Amino acid sequence: MITYKSPLVIESVKPSLDNGRYPIKREVGDTLKVTAVVFRDGHDIITVHLKYKMKYGEDKWHETEMKPLNPGLDLWEGSFVLEKNTPYLYTVEACTDIYRSWLEDTTKKFNAEQDIKSELLEGVKLFNDVIQFMSEKEEKEYLKGLLMKIEAANTQDSKLKMFSFDELKHVMKKFCKMGDPAVFEPALEVYVDRVKARFAAWYEFFPRSQGKDATRSATFKECIERLPDIKKMGFNVVYLPPIHPIGVTKRKGPNNSLKAGPGDPGSPYAIGNKEGGHMVVEPGLGTIDDFEEFEKACRSHGMEVALDFAINCSPDHPYVSEHPEWFFKRPDGSIKYAENPPKKYEDIYPLNFSATNEKWQALWEEMKNIIIFWCEKGVRIFRVDNPHTKPIPFWEYLINEVHYVYPDVIFLAEAFTRPPMMKMLAKVGYTQSYTYFTWRNFKQELIDYLTELTKTEMSEYFRGNFFANTPDILPQILQEGGKPAFKMRFVLASTLSSVYGIYSGFELCENRAIEGKEEYLNSEKYEYKVWDWDQEGNIKDFITLVNKIREENPALHLYKNLEFYPSDSENIIFYGKITYDLKNIILVAVNLDPFKSHESNLTIPIDKFGIRSGETYELHNRITGERALCKGEKYKVRINPEVEPAHIYTLEKWSHRETGFDYFGM
Amino acid sequence: MITYKSPLVIESVKPSLDNGRYPIKREVGDTLKVTAVVFRDGHDIITVHLKYKMKYGEDKWHETEMKPLNPGLDLWEGSFVLEKNTPYLYTVEACTDIYRSWLEDTTKKFNAEQDIKSELLEGVKLFNDVIQFMSEKEEKEYLKGLLMKIEAANTQDSKLKMFSFDELKHVMKKFCKMGDPAVFEPALEVYVDRVKARFAAWYEFFPRSQGKDATRSATFKECIERLPDIKKMGFNVVYLPPIHPIGVTKRKGPNNSLKAGPGDPGSPYAIGNKEGGHMVVEPGLGTIDDFEEFEKACRSHGMEVALDFAINCSPDHPYVSEHPEWFFKRPDGSIKYAENPPKKYEDIYPLNFSATNEKWQALWEEMKNIIIFWCEKGVRIFRVDNPHTKPIPFWEYLINEVHYVYPDVIFLAEAFTRPPMMKMLAKVGYTQSYTYFTWRNFKQELIDYLTELTKTEMSEYFRGNFFANTPDILPQILQEGGKPAFKMRFVLASTLSSVYGIYSGFELCENRAIEGKEEYLNSEKYEYKVWDWDQEGNIKDFITLVNKIREENPALHLYKNLEFYPSDSENIIFYGKITYDLKNIILVAVNLDPFKSHESNLTIPIDKFGIRSGETYELHNRITGERALCKGEKYKVRINPEVEPAHIYTLEKWSHRETGFDYFGM
Repeated sequence: MITYKSPLVIESVKPSLDNGRYPIKREVGDTLKVTAVVFRDGHDIITVHLKYKMKYGEDKWHETEMKPLNPGLDLWEGSFVLEKNTPYLYTVEACTDIYRSWLEDTTKKFNAEQDIKSELLEGVKLFNDVIQFMSEKEEKEYLKGLLMKIEAANTQDSKLKMFSFDELKHVMKKFCKMGDPAVFEPALEVYVDRVKARFAAWYEFFPRSQGKDATRSATFKECIERLPDIKKMGFNVVYLPPIHPIGVTKRKGPNNSLKAGPGDPGSPYAIGNKEGGHMVVEPGLGTIDDFEEFEKACRSHGMEVALDFAINCSPDHPYVSEHPEWFFKRPDGSIKYAENPPKKYEDIYPLNFSATNEKWQALWEEMKNIIIFWCEKGVRIFRVDNPHTKPIPFWEYLINEVHYVYPDVIFLAEAFTRPPMMKMLAKVGYTQSYTYFTWRNFKQELIDYLTELTKTEMSEYFRGNFFANTPDILPQILQEGGKPAFKMRFVLASTLSSVYGIYSGFELCENRAIEGKEEYLNSEKYEYKVWDWDQEGNIKDFITLVNKIREENPALHLYKNLEFYPSDSENIIFYGKITYDLKNIILVAVNLDPFKSHESNLTIPIDKFGIRSGETYELHNRITGERALCKGEKYKVRINPEVEPAHIYTLEKWSHRETGFDYFGM
Repeated sequence: MITYKSPLVIESVKPSLDNGRYPIKREVGDTLKVTAVVFRDGHDIITVHLKYKMKYGEDKWHETEMKPLNPGLDLWEGSFVLEKNTPYLYTVEACTDIYRSWLEDTTKKFNAEQDIKSELLEGVKLFNDVIQFMSEKEEKEYLKGLLMKIEAANTQDSKLKMFSFDELKHVMKKFCKMGDPAVFEPALEVYVDRVKARFAAWYEFFPRSQGKDATRSATFKECIERLPDIKKMGFNVVYLPPIHPIGVTKRKGPNNSLKAGPGDPGSPYAIGNKEGGHMVVEPGLGTIDDFEEFEKACRSHGMEVALDFAINCSPDHPYVSEHPEWFFKRPDGSIKYAENPPKKYEDIYPLNFSATNEKWQALWEEMKNIIIFWCEKGVRIFRVDNPHTKPIPFWEYLINEVHYVYPDVIFLAEAFTRPPMMKMLAKVGYTQSYTYFTWRNFKQELIDYLTELTKTEMSEYFRGNFFANTPDILPQILQEGGKPAFKMRFVLASTLSSVYGIYSGFELCENRAIEGKEEYLNSEKYEYKVWDWDQEGNIKDFITLVNKIREENPALHLYKNLEFYPSDSENIIFYGKITYDLKNIILVAVNLDPFKSHESNLTIPIDKFGIRSGETYELHNRITGERALCKGEKYKVRINPEVEPAHIYTLEKWSHRETGFDYFGM
């Protein structure tokens, strides 16, 4: 027996990621615009609906009608608003609009003066079918009444007029589904994050280095005192490297040396000792209550804590004795430390996530429980260390499980590796990702990379969190370029992406590196530090100003709206961000050379902004406060990195005209 | 319980159409090159295999190893030869190469002078696992013997050397699959057609017009006499409009008039009368035996018959009385004729393919049986009339069923409609499609359209059969441009696409149209005709020559190898086709203006052809026979449409050099 399939074809439903295998991402408040190619054989009229519902807790689909976007290509479009921080499903349904097809054909015949007696009888039959089908009593009664009138009417003309009543169309569309509906399968998914997934400014610090005494760990209580300063600069995420007890066995000393002295704190990434593991706070920082107090203090400043989830166990981690089966073993039964031959990491025991660990499920669950534990303490943001060294199916499991309970959790993937793995981590659920931004310094490579991030399929699921530096990366440009480079890279990070971060010390232009490497000299990773947060040469005012500009301009809250515009200097990059309603227009010109002034002729795409060529508009440089009245698309700049390496303009239309007065009407 | 999934990720397996929903197409003898993105977490070494088998009749997969194509992007490549005219399945399998991962790590440690005692014990364990797993006795014995030697060896060095034996690698790769293999799903499909699906020259004629007597139908016997002429011109497919009995009720007269005179034969597209329907031959043409004789005569000339499959029933078709339930009915029970309101087609009753026909399955099967019937008579090519007015699932059913029995059947879709439907018909199985070629006359529109056909995803499944004219389309350019236009369009059709066709009369430059329309005046569709096939002004010699050039040059047998090259005249289009081994290089310059001579500076991409800038090469104009010695990439042409509207060159390298002599060595 031949299987029945609807004659309606639904294809190319977009956006869609790998044919629906992975969800796309959006943020609360976004409108999801969906297009689809829908058609059938012959010339019958079809109706197309966009259907959507929350993945959890909603059984019934909502529906909204899709409109023809390009009939010549059978392209349809519809949209709906994503109101909640939760995953939604969406799909497309189509059916033949039997009634409208009949009505149009019959009307054409009538207009060509053909006899439509037989067609009107068909109409009556269709009407009766619809009445049969209707469940709503009121509609049913209306149709019955109308049908009696139609049958009583004397002329074909008057019958056809009643069949054509506008109010019928809605009722008849419902009826279409009796026919041959096709539904696109599988339904697609969009994960709707909260807005902070897209728009945030991260500040990373080592909590133990926030005090005044370099011989001991600073405490969470001392960290609380640092918060007003961070808040004032305009940050809203405070990200802490691991806060757990640190291993003693094979502890690393200053500058990653193999032997720690008696007072050396060790790397916080070698997690676990007799005090406990991933669910415990390092005693030097305080108690779990102290952490919760710190977390609340952040919230009271309008900031959130981001914790580091580093799946590293020191040889002293409780798992080693409690779950030796979770680790890799040598033939003699001893546990293996981490290696990347010939390099050895003797202070870390890797966990075995694969099925060669017979208790792998228990390990996976325990990892999930760690995240849930900190969620219960109020944390909703996790930066995950080296996710690319754990299996992809593990992350898909963990993130889905956590999101089922806490849909507001943000996961940032710290995977510096080849593109396919970075993309895959984002596909299986990571909210944000570190990027190659730190190594993109020159004009074309920045344009190419940002275009890939914001204009290709990647923009559907991969949000790049642009860190200007990290404890592991002090880029060459910052080592050599001094204050102008720090300011320049800060503007790039914070305006190219809507979500970015710095690691503390950046505001002090800290640039002492290990010779020939991208690593900090005397890194905080292995030492207690005390900083003068107001020391001479700091750029805190600049950071504060740029964060204020970000805050005040909704165009900078968006990620995918980045556009590059022509600039005739190789050293000056020019780009813009505009809100979709064109009300907020930001233009940014950055001198990428921290050593020298450069000039450039910028081309401002006034057409796109709705400005006519003869019209005057204002460029307001938000960095310097200067204003300029302009006409046409050419604009010349000279950018001196010693003064300010970047211009951030708002473009304002000169909107007040005499035609705006009341007495001109309208 | 958490479900186990392999940590290996296999993505972007290409070529692939709509994630494997539809097969791609290739031809017998092609090499299918497959790429995939494959990776896993961590730094273990992985092995990737391309697997393939015939869809029917092969249970076991063949395997070929894939090689890294771009390791930085985790991109792998493999290929296999498509030997048979049948559908194949292919997919990608990957696993962690446990042994090689262990060996590389251990070797690195050994080279760094670390003690590898524990690692060698691991190696022995791995070896024992492999021995356990092996089924081939010989290999097993070899491994056992080798292991004994390894264990007996004195030094770590000598043990490691034995573990590193090259011949082990192959054995150990088989063993990988014990680990964590991942297989890409679903397996993808490639439909392998015979070469004629890609390379053929079609000639269409009305068999009833192939005689000498305009008062009656010519017969198949008379048609046989026409074959040498068609063969001589270089065609290899003879395509006939419907050959079945023609309806009498509402028969159309000359020029589609509503009333046929007593001697009028009617349109062969109004199929069926008391003599029979789609499985019967119109008596005027002869008997079914006569048809079979004609079919054999074509084969004896190295040509094949293509039949027209037009699902149209005249009111006199036997189906009307035998299966009235297959048709659309009015409320009074009478059968509806075809309409496109307000137009009426009273000589045709459409069939109801939808589920509102309760016996739709029987109808679908009957349609399939029609094709099978003609296959049994030797026919293997069907041109399908108006497929876009029947449901897509119907075609998918019919073509799959026919191909299961006769994989060599070629289906040509005559769907002149919007792009999504045309593409979908190809996706669900049509071997070839008519195109918009007849309406693409100018340079950029030709380049754009051909680029879409040959360089986008369409080239994976859509083969455009370029008809220069059809009984329904006499394009304006042919109506107005005279002989130069006919020659010009002929060269375009036959060299832009590897498969093309003309409708008889083209060789006579027949261009009498109905005023203001693209239709032939006094069309053969409604009348008996007698033609003088050698009448003055014919272009048969030109057609013969171009078909000979096509035959002799393998580059013109390919479809996707079309490349456009620069030409500085808007009227002269310049393109090339090259075999993948670069041995056959064809260049074509066509003057698109049939009214006037034009000059152009052509740019020949000698780099691509492996010619250095100072090197001399030869352009041999195959139309005129002229030869030219050239250097560099610039070449100037003047094309006079009255002489020849196109140049078809072979580019030949001047390959005999003194360095070729033996005494130069190499």
